[in-house]
Amino acid sequence: MKFCSHCGHALTIGIPPLDNMPRHICPNCHMIHYENPKIVVCSIPTWETENETSILLCRRAITPRHGFWTLPGGFMENDETTEQAARRETKEEAGADVRISNLFSLMNLPVYHQVHLFYLAQLENTNFAPGEESLETRLFTEKEIPWDQLAFSTIKYALKFYFEDRKKIQNGGNFGFHTLDLTK
Amino acid sequence: MKFCSHCGHALTIGIPPLDNMPRHICPNCHMIHYENPKIVVCSIPTWETENETSILLCRRAITPRHGFWTLPGGFMENDETTEQAARRETKEEAGADVRISNLFSLMNLPVYHQVHLFYLAQLENTNFAPGEESLETRLFTEKEIPWDQLAFSTIKYALKFYFEDRKKIQNGGNFGFHTLDLTK
Ligand SMILES: [Zn+2]
Ligand SMILES: [Zn+2]
Repeated sequence: MKFCSHCGHALTIGIPPLDNMPRHICPNCHMIHYENPKIVVCSIPTWETENETSILLCRRAITPRHGFWTLPGGFMENDETTEQAARRETKEEAGADVRISNLFSLMNLPVYHQVHLFYLAQLENTNFAPGEESLETRLFTEKEIPWDQLAFSTIKYALKFYFEDRKKIQNGGNFGFHTLDLTK
Repeated sequence: MKFCSHCGHALTIGIPPLDNMPRHICPNCHMIHYENPKIVVCSIPTWETENETSILLCRRAITPRHGFWTLPGGFMENDETTEQAARRETKEEAGADVRISNLFSLMNLPVYHQVHLFYLAQLENTNFAPGEESLETRLFTEKEIPWDQLAFSTIKYALKFYFEDRKKIQNGGNFGFHTLDLTK
């Protein structure tokens, strides 16, 4: 950030009144330009067949991590809720219609200035297909998950939490809510 | 947003490749300037005495809602986790040291481009005092909560969820995790 997005003047750095952190400040129009973490919202889309649960993953057609597998997700937009963001990203990246159920996990990635949210979701049907940002979309049972081909560590943890909870549920538990800080 | 924060050139509006939403685009350096929701993190700081639980509220010394009561909270910063943000804001606004426990609530405010998070927190001591953004800080029992003097509807819902859960806990329940969309 070098120029004021409001008036175009070159920015300076300083600590505003009542603040204790250096910020980008415009010496011309006096606007303070804050920078804040972004929210990434993903779904964990599941499909139940007899005794097996499968999860829908997408193979990335974009950088970073081109060619690696991920859960459908992306940056939350203005004017939508976190749940709407999960549904929208699942439609865009995997062409899939889902019913969103619980918020399942919140992960902090302070190094990347991101907070990741994961929603449990049930596929309405198997008419999914790769969107423009995906090379391939397919269902994976737990045994089939390509653990060494996953795009991001948050995806690995979300899937790990999911399968751990499923085992507990078979013994009478419930899906939990999982928080994790990936401070690296 | 009128000027490119990277090169200072006037921005245009268009739909970038692989996108379906109009964005601010720089015709000079080609940077796309996304705008995303911000995260507000609050704590619900409690103090236990005999059979009574009190909650620490702050009376706002700043706009909006100057003079109204709020839970300590504010915008999450880069390079911190949501829990660190809750602890920092509680220290800044109420001079209070807390142990953060569960994430208690997530509320969407799409109209304001915000997501609010609330953490349960236990005061380490009663040496709290108003920070620069507060006129007054004090403990309130449930009966004393100034319901018609609360600064924001999210604060009202967070306190409502808290006291409802406490009643359940007296009958053997647990604090839940509460999500709410305030679409107005
Ligand atoms: Zn300016
Ligand atoms: Zn530019």
